[in-house]
Amino acid sequence: MRLKTKLLDIQAGEALVAVLNKDDASELGLMAVDRVRLSAGGKEIVAILDVATETVKKGEVGLYQELRKIFGEPQEIEVLPAHKPSSVRFITDRIRGRMLQPAELRQIISDVMDRSLSSLEIAAFITSLEMRPPSMDEAEAITRAMVDLGQTLEWDRHPIFDKHSIGGVPGDKTTMILVPTVASLGLTIPKTSSRAITSPAGTADRVETLCPVELTLEEIREVVAKTNGCMAWGGAVDLAPADDLLIQVEYPLSIDPLYLPSVLGKKKAAGADYIVIDLPTGKGAKLSTVEEANEFGRDFIRLGRRLGLHVQCGITFGEQPVGNNVGPALEAREALETLMGKKSTPDLVEKAASLVGILLRMSGDHRGKRKALEAIRSGKAERKMRQIIEAQGGDPDVKPEDIPIGEHTLEIPSPCSGQVVWVNNHNIVALARSLGTPKHRGAGLCIPKKMGDKVRKGDTILRLYAEKASSLARAEKLLEDLEPVMVAEKLADRVLIREVVEVPEVPFTIER
Amino acid sequence: MRLKTKLLDIQAGEALVAVLNKDDASELGLMAVDRVRLSAGGKEIVAILDVATETVKKGEVGLYQELRKIFGEPQEIEVLPAHKPSSVRFITDRIRGRMLQPAELRQIISDVMDRSLSSLEIAAFITSLEMRPPSMDEAEAITRAMVDLGQTLEWDRHPIFDKHSIGGVPGDKTTMILVPTVASLGLTIPKTSSRAITSPAGTADRVETLCPVELTLEEIREVVAKTNGCMAWGGAVDLAPADDLLIQVEYPLSIDPLYLPSVLGKKKAAGADYIVIDLPTGKGAKLSTVEEANEFGRDFIRLGRRLGLHVQCGITFGEQPVGNNVGPALEAREALETLMGKKSTPDLVEKAASLVGILLRMSGDHRGKRKALEAIRSGKAERKMRQIIEAQGGDPDVKPEDIPIGEHTLEIPSPCSGQVVWVNNHNIVALARSLGTPKHRGAGLCIPKKMGDKVRKGDTILRLYAEKASSLARAEKLLEDLEPVMVAEKLADRVLIREVVEVPEVPFTIER
Repeated sequence: MRLKTKLLDIQAGEALVAVLNKDDASELGLMAVDRVRLSAGGKEIVAILDVATETVKKGEVGLYQELRKIFGEPQEIEVLPAHKPSSVRFITDRIRGRMLQPAELRQIISDVMDRSLSSLEIAAFITSLEMRPPSMDEAEAITRAMVDLGQTLEWDRHPIFDKHSIGGVPGDKTTMILVPTVASLGLTIPKTSSRAITSPAGTADRVETLCPVELTLEEIREVVAKTNGCMAWGGAVDLAPADDLLIQVEYPLSIDPLYLPSVLGKKKAAGADYIVIDLPTGKGAKLSTVEEANEFGRDFIRLGRRLGLHVQCGITFGEQPVGNNVGPALEAREALETLMGKKSTPDLVEKAASLVGILLRMSGDHRGKRKALEAIRSGKAERKMRQIIEAQGGDPDVKPEDIPIGEHTLEIPSPCSGQVVWVNNHNIVALARSLGTPKHRGAGLCIPKKMGDKVRKGDTILRLYAEKASSLARAEKLLEDLEPVMVAEKLADRVLIREVVEVPEVPFTIER
Repeated sequence: MRLKTKLLDIQAGEALVAVLNKDDASELGLMAVDRVRLSAGGKEIVAILDVATETVKKGEVGLYQELRKIFGEPQEIEVLPAHKPSSVRFITDRIRGRMLQPAELRQIISDVMDRSLSSLEIAAFITSLEMRPPSMDEAEAITRAMVDLGQTLEWDRHPIFDKHSIGGVPGDKTTMILVPTVASLGLTIPKTSSRAITSPAGTADRVETLCPVELTLEEIREVVAKTNGCMAWGGAVDLAPADDLLIQVEYPLSIDPLYLPSVLGKKKAAGADYIVIDLPTGKGAKLSTVEEANEFGRDFIRLGRRLGLHVQCGITFGEQPVGNNVGPALEAREALETLMGKKSTPDLVEKAASLVGILLRMSGDHRGKRKALEAIRSGKAERKMRQIIEAQGGDPDVKPEDIPIGEHTLEIPSPCSGQVVWVNNHNIVALARSLGTPKHRGAGLCIPKKMGDKVRKGDTILRLYAEKASSLARAEKLLEDLEPVMVAEKLADRVLIREVVEVPEVPFTIER
C-alpha cells in the first residue's frame, strides 16, 4: 500500500512508530501495536503501528521524528504488514508460564535497545519478571545480554575493585570516602555512579559539585591511569545501556525486578573483579530485616559467581542518614571535611573502612579496614581525593566552604529535652526533595544530632538549606506533617513508630 | 509552571497525554508516565506526561488533539505535578500479590474508560490477571464495573434469551439459525454479535450482507418489539464498553484473561435472563479437550450465578467448519438456504437445535430441541428471519443468490480417492483471511466435503472466492504450504496430525 507521508513534529519517545488511518489499517488487516514494514528511497524498516481516526487521513502515513531521521521526508512510503519480532512471542510465552532460554532473553533485550518493542510489550515483560522472578539461569542470561549489547571497559591492570550500594539511606556519601581510600592504597577502583532519580542526591550529583563527572570511557581510562581511581557518572558511558530503557517502564509501575542483573551487568561491563555490595538495613531502609538482607546478598553473590565476579556484601545500619548532611553540595562538603579531618563523622568513616575491609579481604588482604582507617587519618586519602578531583578537571585545592550551598536557611529547634530516638529516612528524603534536591545542588538539610545523641530543648535538630525562598517555604509547609527527627526523654516515651494508613506514605524509589 | 502551548496535529490514541521538554519535566521532578495537572481558561485536567528532548522545547507544553478538544488552543497552560490515579497503586499491589477489593477494581475499570491510565499501566494489569487469574470475587467485581459504567438495556418483557459462542470454528453461522428459530417460538432474543477481529467472519459481518446491523439501542428495542429478536452489531451500542479498550492491550500481548467478565458483562448489560454458551471443542478449536471445556463452562455458570444470570453451556464438536461455507456473504447465503430448506446442512441444523434445547430447558421447557427442528423444517424460522431482516432495514424477499460473492474463483481437486479424514481449522482461517475476509464480504471459501465424506480423485474439495484477482493469487500461493482438507483412503493412512515446530503456526485469536 503506497501512502502519502504526513510529517509529525513530535518524537514518539520510546519506540519507532508509524501512524495509519484506521481504514487503511483495517484494509491491511492490522490493529494498533501490530508491525508495518516501511520502504522508501531504498531504505526499509519495521515500525510499530499506531492507528488514528482523524489526524492521519486515509491514504496517509504519519511519521514521528525518529522515522523522519531514518527516511528523511519522502513524498510517499510503501507500507506493508510485517511480522512482530519473535521477542513479543517470547514475552507472551513467559507470561503463560514458560521460563525463557538465554537466546530468547537476549533477543528481548536486543529488541528493547533497538526500540523494536512497544512500551506495553516491555511492561508485560517486566510485570512477568516481578510476578515470577527470573531464575538464576534467566538472570544470568539477561545480565550477559545487557553486557554484550553495550560498551565494556577492558583493563591492563588487575584486580579491579568496585563498590555498590543498594541505596535507600539519605546522606550516604560513603563512596566519596571509600574510592580515594582504596586508590590511596595503590589499588585500582574505577567507580561509576548514578545520579539521583527519586533520592535527594546520587554520588554523581555529589561529586559534580567538586569536578566534572560526565567522562567518556577514554577519559575514565586517563583519570584511572593517573590516580588509580575515578568517580564518574555511569550514565555518560554506555555500560549495559538497556537498563535505562527498562527503567522507563519499571519506574511508572513501581517495580524493579531486574535490579540484580542491572547492577552486576554494569559492574561486569566496567571490568570489575572484586565488588563489595552495601546493604543498608533496618526501619526505613530498603531492606527491613537482617534475614531479608542476607537472602538478597546471597543472590548477589550467586549471580556474581556465574558472571565470573567476586562479590561480597556488607549489611549496614540503615535507619538514619550517614553523617549529618543531605543534599549534593552539603554532602560533598561533609565528605571533604571528613577526609581533611576537619569534621568528625564516625559512622561515615567506620562504614567506609568496614567496606574497604570486605573488599580487600576478597583479594587476600585481611588488614583492609585498618589500612583504610590509617589512610583516612593520615591525610593520604584526602591527597588522593584531590588528585582525582584534578584529574577529572576540578580544582584540587578546593576548600569545603568553596562549594556553594543554598542561602535560604531555616533552623528547627527541638521541642523538648532528651535524646534523638528515631530518624525517619522517608521524611528526610521528602523534605530534601521539597527543598529542591537533587536539581538544586545547594539545597538540602543537616541533622546535627543523630540517634542516641543528647538534645536540650531549643537545640537545633534540623537545618534546612534552599536555593529559592519558595522552596524553603514549601519545605516549611511540608514539615507541619512530618517528623524527620524525633526527640524524647527516654526511648520508651515514644513507642508509636508509625500509623498504618490505607494509602502508603512511602514512595517507590528507583536508584542504581 | 506556565508554559507556551505547542499544538500537535496528532491523536495520542489511548490516553490523555501532554508533552514536556525533559528539562522542564526534571525541574518539576517528573519522569515520563508521571501525571501533570493542566489548567487554562478555568478548565483543569490531569494528563499523562510524555517527555521529549527536541520537538517540544523548554518552556513549551505539547498538546495532542484529545487535549485540544478539551482546552481549545490557549496561548499558555499552567502545568503542575499531579498524583497518579490510585488505580496505578492498585495495579502495582496486584502485581505484588494482593488480591484487589471490588471498589479498587471498579476504580481501575473506570480509569481505563476515562483514558486516565497509560497503555503500559493497563498492560501490567492485564499481565497480572493472566499470570494470577482473577478470583471469582475479582471477576464478579470487574464484570459489575464493566456493566455499571456502560449503557444497559432494560426490558418490559421477560424472560430474555441469549446465546454466545466462544468461537474458534470458521464458518459457524449457528446464530443466524438459532435467533430466528427462538424468536419464531414467541420467545424474546435480542442478540448482539461481534465483528471479526482475527477470524474470517463474525455474526455481525454475516448478517450485514442481508441488512444493516449498526442499530442504536432504540432501534434494537423497535426491532425486538416487532419481531421478538434481532441480530445487531454489539459494537454500535455501548454495552460494557471498557472491553473495547482492554482488547487494545490484550490483542498485542496475545492474552485474554478477562474473557468471562467481558462476555457475561455484555450479556448482563443486555438484560439477559437465560444464556446458552457454545463451547466448540477438539483439535484445532479453542478448547482442546472435553475436560477443559467442562471446567471453562463451569466457570461461566458460576460467574453467571453471581451476576443473577442463568447460564448453561453446550460442548460442541469443533474440529471442522459448521456447514460448508466460510466468509461473510457465503455464510449468509448458506444460512438463508438452510432456513429455506434449499440446502442440506445437517450439522448446522443439529447444532442450532441442540443449543435451543439447552436454552429453553432453563426456562422450564424440555421440548426446545424438537420445537426448534420443527420451526426450521416448517419454514416458520425462515419467515421470522425475513421479518427480522425487514425490521432491521433489509429486503425481506432477499434470495440467496442476491447476496454478492467474489467473482474470482478457483476449485481445488482432491489429489486422490478416499474420504476426508481431517480438516484444519487454522489453515481454513488463514486461507479465508488471505482471500480478503472479513473486509471483503464476498470473499471466502467452500468445503463441499466434510470429515468422513467419500471423495473421488479430482472431486472439488475446496472452492475459493475472492473479490480481487490479487487476493486469489495470494491465497493460491499460500495454499502451497497448507492442507486445509486432508483426503486419504483410510483414516489410518494419514497418522501424522501435525509437526512440532519451534515457532507456533497457530495465531492468537481474539473474538467476543
